[in-house]
Amino acid sequence: MLAARWHPPSYDIRVENVPVPQIEDPDDAVVKVTLAGLCGSDLHIYRGQQPITKVHITGHEFIGEVVKLGSNYGPNAARSTSGRPNLYATLSVGDKVVAPFTVNCGECHVCRLGYTGRCPVGALFGSPKLDGGQAQYVRVPKAGGTLYNLSSPASWSSALTATSDVETLLENISDSSLLLLSDILPTGVFAATQLLAHPKVQPMLTGRSWPSSLNPSSPTIDLGSGLLTQEDRLLTIAMIGLGPVGVCAAVALLDALVQKGLPYRIVAIDINQSRREKMEKVYEAIGSDGKGQNGEFVVQGLEEAKETVAKWTGDVGCTGVLEVVGNNSALTAAYDLARPFGVITSVGVHAPKNVPFTGQDLYNKNISFDFGRCPARAMFPMAFELLVKRQDVFGKVGTESSLIDRVVDIKQASEMYRAFDQGQVGKVLFDPWDQA
Amino acid sequence: MLAARWHPPSYDIRVENVPVPQIEDPDDAVVKVTLAGLCGSDLHIYRGQQPITKVHITGHEFIGEVVKLGSNYGPNAARSTSGRPNLYATLSVGDKVVAPFTVNCGECHVCRLGYTGRCPVGALFGSPKLDGGQAQYVRVPKAGGTLYNLSSPASWSSALTATSDVETLLENISDSSLLLLSDILPTGVFAATQLLAHPKVQPMLTGRSWPSSLNPSSPTIDLGSGLLTQEDRLLTIAMIGLGPVGVCAAVALLDALVQKGLPYRIVAIDINQSRREKMEKVYEAIGSDGKGQNGEFVVQGLEEAKETVAKWTGDVGCTGVLEVVGNNSALTAAYDLARPFGVITSVGVHAPKNVPFTGQDLYNKNISFDFGRCPARAMFPMAFELLVKRQDVFGKVGTESSLIDRVVDIKQASEMYRAFDQGQVGKVLFDPWDQA
Repeated sequence: MLAARWHPPSYDIRVENVPVPQIEDPDDAVVKVTLAGLCGSDLHIYRGQQPITKVHITGHEFIGEVVKLGSNYGPNAARSTSGRPNLYATLSVGDKVVAPFTVNCGECHVCRLGYTGRCPVGALFGSPKLDGGQAQYVRVPKAGGTLYNLSSPASWSSALTATSDVETLLENISDSSLLLLSDILPTGVFAATQLLAHPKVQPMLTGRSWPSSLNPSSPTIDLGSGLLTQEDRLLTIAMIGLGPVGVCAAVALLDALVQKGLPYRIVAIDINQSRREKMEKVYEAIGSDGKGQNGEFVVQGLEEAKETVAKWTGDVGCTGVLEVVGNNSALTAAYDLARPFGVITSVGVHAPKNVPFTGQDLYNKNISFDFGRCPARAMFPMAFELLVKRQDVFGKVGTESSLIDRVVDIKQASEMYRAFDQGQVGKVLFDPWDQA
Repeated sequence: MLAARWHPPSYDIRVENVPVPQIEDPDDAVVKVTLAGLCGSDLHIYRGQQPITKVHITGHEFIGEVVKLGSNYGPNAARSTSGRPNLYATLSVGDKVVAPFTVNCGECHVCRLGYTGRCPVGALFGSPKLDGGQAQYVRVPKAGGTLYNLSSPASWSSALTATSDVETLLENISDSSLLLLSDILPTGVFAATQLLAHPKVQPMLTGRSWPSSLNPSSPTIDLGSGLLTQEDRLLTIAMIGLGPVGVCAAVALLDALVQKGLPYRIVAIDINQSRREKMEKVYEAIGSDGKGQNGEFVVQGLEEAKETVAKWTGDVGCTGVLEVVGNNSALTAAYDLARPFGVITSVGVHAPKNVPFTGQDLYNKNISFDFGRCPARAMFPMAFELLVKRQDVFGKVGTESSLIDRVVDIKQASEMYRAFDQGQVGKVLFDPWDQA
């Protein structure tokens, strides 16, 4: 089969003929890849920033169709008898699936809690430990825990099952849209979900002051009227980083705010003008069902954004900040923009550099931080529901608001890595079957 | 009046005769101090660790009785007409009051949210900006927002008003117990409350995996049975630092766990043997109503605690860690003890030193941090309710589990600061009227 492979030491991607992967373990599945994405974090390996020497197939974003299943699959694996994830019993050859960017068993304590991104047996697709999806076929370990079966309403949210059948749903959603599920859309949903669930944000959501915001039967502070004004409840949120994940986070955040009926002021920040323009196009393309009537949304550079937040909040600062960049400048900006008792949710992938804060900085502003990788498998049902609602906005190649710049033959992988690394193209998807 | 005053550059506390403070602003109250506490954070100024030159009255922990009120107090200040905190209308000379360690107006946006510890007009008692309570009298700015009126059931929790009247309640609670309200007990309650309210802890509390733990109508992950086992739900919590605040945090945490009916395993950690012994005495002294039937609670040094957590959790780590020390060793220990998707709640007062983490450390473990100062005024109703339940455990001078080592004449302040700084005495309270 054709596969894009990374060669040491750096900047060397070759499309080569390699053996089709086989079932190696009874829990494995082999997936025929329909589309594979090129993601900003692929560049960490591409650039040789990590001490890797092993030639391997790249890519952690892919969708496809199950073509082979290990011997642990089938009706005998019913959950009631095996106690294993239901997919071991129900997954079939031909099912349309998406994988998260990391493997997870779905059975251990960590997975059961929903923290699938940190399953102890996890591995990142497209790493020396596990060949990736920028190929015609990919082997998926622990596929009964890892894969999400798009063809099965059993794995959908109740809102989806209530409104769609499999055939209609999958007919009406493009593969390029579905590819966004593998990483960037669930990561965006995760970021927004974490921010709005944080205890320090609850006074705005509940209209009750801390700590009765956490428990209606908790004693109240008995200051002022005891209830918050509409002005008090107005959420002011900054988003730093408007790459594809940042845009997904913005769409997810807007959707959650509108569903909760919350008024908001959002300032979306990037230093890069073309990213700011994309964010504006996306916001324009979202209908009123996705942005509501009580919101203000502006896209700015950092310095302008600081002035905006100061003006909006009387110098108090943002309720919360989403950090979707993954470097210390972004963390510093997040700190500066946050209010006392502010929440910073960071889904950026950070380097092994000390974070730029003293303990006193964090104490003095009562800052809360949430760091880390999206448990994508756990976020799939929420992300899929959102994707179905918003695919027209960002999933259709060729529209102004699409997050996908182009779909190309996988044979162009080497050239596209180079162009993507140099900022000459946006998000690229590889079609492994273009020439087949 | 007599007052303990700090003199530059360091290690110089003198008990001196100074003028009784007067009303300087119509929102002021003057409080006659019944007892004032000596707190670990008083040592930051004592030792000259801060660039301060101003002679000032020390102490941020005090309780007392209102003796003078500014002209803004009285029936004309009713909330319905003035829109101000109710205490401007209801506070009377003779009322028994406790102040948080910082002033807060109770009227601004930040206070209305309950984030009183960061009120923009706030000031720390016992600092160059505001004379403290280690004196016979203290002036309390913005007293209608700052003070908590112990004599008024209107400020109590509903559980307290349902079971007590003012006379019985105040007769049955000692002043040494009430002094714990000024700082250390609300800080402990704040720490425990933050930890248990964190979104990453909710799977254990709700029995549903992330993200349906946050919203029962959210789609579930559909792995395993979909519900968590009792073993999955077992909270494993480490507490680092068993000084008086740490002990208060332990008592608050146990109370919250028992109220929620949650099973738990807690390891309480300190390098200091006498602190570990005090924690053990306190745990012994708590009745089963305060520690439940489904808990395990051990007190250990750090290395032993790491082994305990590894054994308890199969090397996964703690659900949450309370950091009540305020230095980088404690933060590092908290990180090491936490599980992936673990929560670290830090109420320690930190120095201007960089925190010992890289962004990669935090990303790789999906760590969440909550830093900062307790909004004590907002926590008073919860803390007072807990104090009434547990005063026998830690509030009675002379018992083995008391957090208060001794009550002394304020004239001994200089000597007691020295002994406290050198670890020769535990928590000391000053009686400003011993010789009067």
